[in-house]
Amino acid sequence: MRRFTEAEVLALDAADPLAPLRDRFVLPQGVIYLDGNSLGPLTKAARERVTQTVEAEWGEGLIRSWNTANWIDLPATVAAKIAPLIGAAPGTVAVADSTSINLFKVLAVALEKRPHRRVILTEAGNFPTDLYIADGLARLLDRGHELRAVPANELAAAMDETVAVVLLTEVNYRSGARLDMAALTAPAHAAGALAIWDLAHSAGAFPVDLAGADADFAVGCGYKYLNGGPGAPAFAYVAPRHLDGLRQPLSGWMGHATPFAFAADYRPAGSIEAMRVGTPPILSLAALDAALGAFADVDLAVVKTKADRLFDIFTAEIAALCPKLELLTPAEPARRGTQASFRAENAYAVMQALIGRGVIGDFREPDILRFGLTPLYLRHADVLRAARILGEVLQSRAWDDPRFHARAKVV
Amino acid sequence: MRRFTEAEVLALDAADPLAPLRDRFVLPQGVIYLDGNSLGPLTKAARERVTQTVEAEWGEGLIRSWNTANWIDLPATVAAKIAPLIGAAPGTVAVADSTSINLFKVLAVALEKRPHRRVILTEAGNFPTDLYIADGLARLLDRGHELRAVPANELAAAMDETVAVVLLTEVNYRSGARLDMAALTAPAHAAGALAIWDLAHSAGAFPVDLAGADADFAVGCGYKYLNGGPGAPAFAYVAPRHLDGLRQPLSGWMGHATPFAFAADYRPAGSIEAMRVGTPPILSLAALDAALGAFADVDLAVVKTKADRLFDIFTAEIAALCPKLELLTPAEPARRGTQASFRAENAYAVMQALIGRGVIGDFREPDILRFGLTPLYLRHADVLRAARILGEVLQSRAWDDPRFHARAKVV
Repeated sequence: MRRFTEAEVLALDAADPLAPLRDRFVLPQGVIYLDGNSLGPLTKAARERVTQTVEAEWGEGLIRSWNTANWIDLPATVAAKIAPLIGAAPGTVAVADSTSINLFKVLAVALEKRPHRRVILTEAGNFPTDLYIADGLARLLDRGHELRAVPANELAAAMDETVAVVLLTEVNYRSGARLDMAALTAPAHAAGALAIWDLAHSAGAFPVDLAGADADFAVGCGYKYLNGGPGAPAFAYVAPRHLDGLRQPLSGWMGHATPFAFAADYRPAGSIEAMRVGTPPILSLAALDAALGAFADVDLAVVKTKADRLFDIFTAEIAALCPKLELLTPAEPARRGTQASFRAENAYAVMQALIGRGVIGDFREPDILRFGLTPLYLRHADVLRAARILGEVLQSRAWDDPRFHARAKVV
Repeated sequence: MRRFTEAEVLALDAADPLAPLRDRFVLPQGVIYLDGNSLGPLTKAARERVTQTVEAEWGEGLIRSWNTANWIDLPATVAAKIAPLIGAAPGTVAVADSTSINLFKVLAVALEKRPHRRVILTEAGNFPTDLYIADGLARLLDRGHELRAVPANELAAAMDETVAVVLLTEVNYRSGARLDMAALTAPAHAAGALAIWDLAHSAGAFPVDLAGADADFAVGCGYKYLNGGPGAPAFAYVAPRHLDGLRQPLSGWMGHATPFAFAADYRPAGSIEAMRVGTPPILSLAALDAALGAFADVDLAVVKTKADRLFDIFTAEIAALCPKLELLTPAEPARRGTQASFRAENAYAVMQALIGRGVIGDFREPDILRFGLTPLYLRHADVLRAARILGEVLQSRAWDDPRFHARAKVV
C-alpha cells in the first residue's frame, strides 16, 4: 500500500465520474464528513421536499394529501427505489418503522416457519440491537429459543439441524468486515435453516444481491448510506417464496388488505405491504424518498470501486503518519464494506479533537475510530486531507485536553 | 337544543378566551377544517422547527446534533409535554413508534402480568387496529388467548376472573361516544384484570386523567388532536406501579439502559424509556414537539367547554337544515369527545361535495359523516357556516354527481 500525493488525488478527483454527485448534497463549509455510515448528510432534494411536504401538503392539503399527494403509497414508492440497490425484485421490499422493529417482524415470521428448531445463530459482535430484538422475541415466545453467537469463521460449521434461523449483519458496525452473504446463506439452507441479513451498513454502500444470494429475509436502515435523515424509516425484504400468505405479528391496520374498510378482522395485505403496521411518519418518509434521488443513474459497483480507492488513500496516509493506529478493517476489498476502523489509544478523545478540527468520524467502544468512506459526496482530496489532520492531532497530542475526554451522551 | 344566530356566534368569538390561539396555526384560505381529529393542521411553530431541524441540525450539525441539538432526549422532551395533557405523572409517558406498535408493547407487558388468564376484553366497534394488534399478539403467543368484544353497556358485566386485560378506546372513532375511564377501570381491577386505554381521540381534545382513573397502561396518537403532523410518533403510558422492572418484547437498543455502550446483553432502561425501540424519526418528532407548544398555557377544560358549544351550534343548525341526518354522538357532554358524527344516505358523496365547497370532514364506513370540533383554531362562526354549507349541499343535491361517488384510496 503506497501513499498518494496531493497531485495524484487531485487528478483522481478531476477524472472521477461520480464527482458531479457531490452537488446533490448540502455539506457544511470546513467539514470533511466521514460519518455518512452513521447519518448520511442532507441532500438538496430532501431539503426542498420536506418544505413542500410541510407547507403545501400538510399545511394546504391537510387530510386530503393522503390521496392528492399520495401519502398512502409513499412507503411503496420509497421501497421501489430501495429494491434495485439491494438486488431485490419488485414487490419484495417494504418501508416501515425502524430496523429493530422490522427485524422483530421477519424473525417472528422465520421462526414460525421452523417450529421445531430452537437456535437463532448469529455472529459474536453482531450489532447489539439485533441481539436484543432476538432476545426479546425469544422471551416473549417462551419456547426455549436460544441465541447462539459464534465467531464469523465458525458460522458455517455451527449450522446444524437445531438452527432455525441464521441472523447476520453483512458488514460489521465496528470493524467494517463484510461477510459473504451467498457463501453463508447456502450452508444455512443446506442445514434447513433460514437466513436473515441486516443490511444497515450495506444498502447504498455497494451492490447487494439479495436475490442472487438467495436470502430469505433482510432488514436495513434508511438514515445511513441512503441519506434519509435522522431516524428515517427502515426497510424489510421478504423473498418471493415467503410472500404467499405473509403475515407478521405486528398486524396493524396499514398492513391490512383493506385498511379503510375498517373490518373487524385482520386480513393481511396479500403482498409485501403486510409488513406495514401503523401510520408512517410522512415527513421523515418524504425526506428519504427525495434523498434516494441521489442514487438515480448511479452504479453501485462504481461507488464501491471509488470507496476502495478512498480507503487506500486514507489508510496508506494513516499508516505512514499514525503508525500506532491498528487498522481493523480487512484489506481485501471484497471482505469489507466502505468504512475504515482503527484501534487507538485514547480513541474517544482523539475523535473529539479530530471533530474539533472539522473531520467528523465517530468513536465506538472501547477504542475504535470509525470513518465512513462515502463516494457520492467525498473527494479523494478530502480523505487525504482528513488523514493528515488526524496525523496532526496525534502528533501534537491535541486530544490531550480535558474537554475532549468528557463523554457526551451519544457517541 | 336551539339554533344560534350569526350575531350570537360572532359575539361568542369576540368573547372567546381561546380565540388568540388560532394565530398559532397555518390554515388554508377558504377552508373550514373539521378533520383535526384525523390529522391536526400545521402550526407556525412546527413549520419553523422542521426547517431548523433539516437545515441547521441535520444539514449543518450532521451527526453532532444527536448531542448538540439534543436529538437523543427529544422523545423524552415530547413525552414531558404530553404527560400533563393526559393526567400522567412525570416519567410515565414515552414517545415512540406508532399507536399500533405501542399497543403491542403494553399489551404484551400486561398479558405477562396475568399469565393464567386468557381473555382480552374489548368493546365491539373498537378501532380495528387495536383488535388486529391484539389478534397478532395472541397468535404469536399461541397460548389460547381470546379477544372478546362486547357492547359498551355489557363491558362491566363481562369482567370476570378469566379476563387478563380490558382494552378500550376512550372515544369511539365512529360515533364519538366516550367511555367512562374511571368507571370501567375500577371493575376491571376488581375482577383482577388490567386496563389499557387508547387515547387516540382523547389526548389534546379534553382533560384526560389517567392517574385519577387508575389506568394501568395507555397509548395514543401524535397526529390527531396533538397536531404533530402526518404519521407523527405516538405515545405510551405505563402506570408508576408497573415501571419497576419494565421490559417489553420489542427490546431495541434505544430502550437499553446504556445504548452507546453496545453491550451484548439487553438491559432495560429502568424507566419509561424502556418503551423505546429503534432510532426515532427526528423530523417527525421535531414537528410534534413544536406543535405541542400550541397547548402551552391552555386549559383543556376550557377547550372542552368551547368544543361543547361548537357541538351545540353545529348540531342544532344541522338538525334544522338537514332533518334526515341522524346524530350518532351522545348529547350529554360527558359522554362524548369533541367530534360530531351523523348517519347519512350517500354519506361518501355528501362528504366529497362538502369538501369541494371547502368544509373538510371525513367519511367512515358505512354511512357516517364525521366532524372534528377542535377549539384551538375553530371559531364559533366557522361551525355555523359549515353546518349551513352542509345544508346547501343536501338541499341542492350537489353530492349527486358521479365525481363525488368515485372512492379514493384513503377515505
